[in-house]
Amino acid sequence: MSSDPRFGLRRHVTLPGPLALDSGASLSPVEIGYETYGTLNEDASNAVLICHALTGDQHVASDHPITGKPGWWTRMIGPGKPIDPARHFIICSNVIGSCMGSSGPATIDPATGEPFGMAFPVITIRDMVRAQAMLLDHLGIRRLQAVVGGSMGGMQALSWPATFPTRVGAVVVIASTSRHSAQNIAYHEVGRQAIMADPKWRGGDYYAANDPPSAGLAVARMAAHITYLSEAGLTEKFGRRFQAREGGEAGAKSFGFDADFQVESYLRHQGLSFSDRFDANSYLYITRALDYFDLAEEHGGMLAGAFRDTQARFCVVSFDSDWLYPTRESRTIVKALNAAGRHVSFVELSSPFGHDAFLLDSPELNRVIDGFLRTGG
Amino acid sequence: MSSDPRFGLRRHVTLPGPLALDSGASLSPVEIGYETYGTLNEDASNAVLICHALTGDQHVASDHPITGKPGWWTRMIGPGKPIDPARHFIICSNVIGSCMGSSGPATIDPATGEPFGMAFPVITIRDMVRAQAMLLDHLGIRRLQAVVGGSMGGMQALSWPATFPTRVGAVVVIASTSRHSAQNIAYHEVGRQAIMADPKWRGGDYYAANDPPSAGLAVARMAAHITYLSEAGLTEKFGRRFQAREGGEAGAKSFGFDADFQVESYLRHQGLSFSDRFDANSYLYITRALDYFDLAEEHGGMLAGAFRDTQARFCVVSFDSDWLYPTRESRTIVKALNAAGRHVSFVELSSPFGHDAFLLDSPELNRVIDGFLRTGG
Repeated sequence: MSSDPRFGLRRHVTLPGPLALDSGASLSPVEIGYETYGTLNEDASNAVLICHALTGDQHVASDHPITGKPGWWTRMIGPGKPIDPARHFIICSNVIGSCMGSSGPATIDPATGEPFGMAFPVITIRDMVRAQAMLLDHLGIRRLQAVVGGSMGGMQALSWPATFPTRVGAVVVIASTSRHSAQNIAYHEVGRQAIMADPKWRGGDYYAANDPPSAGLAVARMAAHITYLSEAGLTEKFGRRFQAREGGEAGAKSFGFDADFQVESYLRHQGLSFSDRFDANSYLYITRALDYFDLAEEHGGMLAGAFRDTQARFCVVSFDSDWLYPTRESRTIVKALNAAGRHVSFVELSSPFGHDAFLLDSPELNRVIDGFLRTGG
Repeated sequence: MSSDPRFGLRRHVTLPGPLALDSGASLSPVEIGYETYGTLNEDASNAVLICHALTGDQHVASDHPITGKPGWWTRMIGPGKPIDPARHFIICSNVIGSCMGSSGPATIDPATGEPFGMAFPVITIRDMVRAQAMLLDHLGIRRLQAVVGGSMGGMQALSWPATFPTRVGAVVVIASTSRHSAQNIAYHEVGRQAIMADPKWRGGDYYAANDPPSAGLAVARMAAHITYLSEAGLTEKFGRRFQAREGGEAGAKSFGFDADFQVESYLRHQGLSFSDRFDANSYLYITRALDYFDLAEEHGGMLAGAFRDTQARFCVVSFDSDWLYPTRESRTIVKALNAAGRHVSFVELSSPFGHDAFLLDSPELNRVIDGFLRTGG
């Protein structure tokens, strides 16, 4: 546990479990890596849970321990920001299945004394939420003031009131969806096949050799990364510009297979740097959880059914250039919330940056979330 | 040479060359695999050249020699079709760089007696067109009645009047673009990295071992294949439906990593079957040619400049659900043709099937092309 205020509190807990999973399996013990910022007030009513995306982690507003980069949502969380440690007790926990301190395929399986690998149970978004609820029990928090998330974090945020209707007062869902489409699944399947095609994957049993399937994971990341950006954003950022050559010479066609274009070099870098910080098996497990996500299916095929038992207020935000989870997916959520009689604010924001817009500077997004969190109970 | 009329004439020629390439290298000899249908008339004025796409080949209206499947454009070419062997002398040649009989990385390098592998020169779309022109010289055809192509075939069709202004009378460009965008390049780079990450690729030197990088090529194909289909088309075709289980049992989540969803199974099949019929190095070379394609750049940055010297008529067709080469790319071509004072017909057709629509049943497309080819000189 670090107590450097710049980093919030870096925490880890081993809960006895068992955690009953959607697959029928159960997990025990349950490791959770998490961070907190601010102080829980006396009646434990100021807790805000931040849910992270596929490749995110608990380092929401503190430097990443491997890359040294600032937290992934310092634009939203911090002094004077919409989610402020001066007012909120902020919790962000690594999802189960991941690789930053929570139980996942790299965790030691108590039954064998070896890393789980592919023996780790397949998990769902709802299982991630159940693990978060166990953490809240441990922290003495019965009810969240709010749960907030973008992308996969938004799916967890949606799953919260559906799974624990009385434990959350407000829900913020950004750039997300109530279920994965065929195209979403297709992209993830490409990534999984890229990992599994890498001979170093060895059926998931690569931890002892300390030689992970980095090449396969890099390809998976490259394919996924394109879906996080808009076509217009890519054109604006890179167009057909060539990479400068060594010595600063202006770039041109090499008539070879080096990264001639800036966009090629950028993607290669994205792939390689991701491999340095992420576990390939975790990528398999978390993409599977995403593809399995279909909140309506969990409620008899009616999305509105997911929201019938909660009194939570909702805020749904989409970005007009997001083609991974386009605005129509947010509208589907909003219609279901309306059908369930819930209070919901919805806004589509304009951005050229595609899906990743929720992670970038967006004063409008900050205003929307600040306003939503300050009103209501 | 087969003379079975169902198959057209399967032909192969070795031309002495040299073929001067955009890279500055030259190719000699130049192997060309091609097919012809119909008969060249006396004044050699009824020749129609069909240009194929990235993974296409010369078997445009005859059964594929490996897969046994019908030719890839039997909907467009054949008796009673818009391009009809009763009226036209139809030629379709395998592009150089490919693997179906024309010079490519799998061809024997006369300098070494071994397959070229990555010693094959990097080629461009214009180089493909130059090789086609050499074939026409060999066949005694000075001028094409028309050149017709979709996707990469459309780029060759565009490149024809730009490279040989007096050798073509009519140009049909379907579902194509005058240059590859940053997003187009990005997807191809994912595919190339997937191939090169496969240890069986061995720097392109895998022919002797007869153990090609099929897994990497399959991943490349899967990633690309998604871009050929629309999101709506994928949803209509697969949605979130599960794969039926062995014994016909209705499918469900397996909580494992098998292909649970139909879309996963479909993509895996696409990847594997492609590996059986295509050479990984050819995929590298042809995607490179596509990414290098920028017709304006070849003409001082002005696309209209590409069309200043030709008298050819143009027909440009796009599909509204094509997000690989969207309608706006066709409009860019049309504007340049207008600026150059060329005669151009342009139509955007409606289809739910995305980029691949040009290969599917489309009575409207057939009507447009039939009408265009029947009018004018």
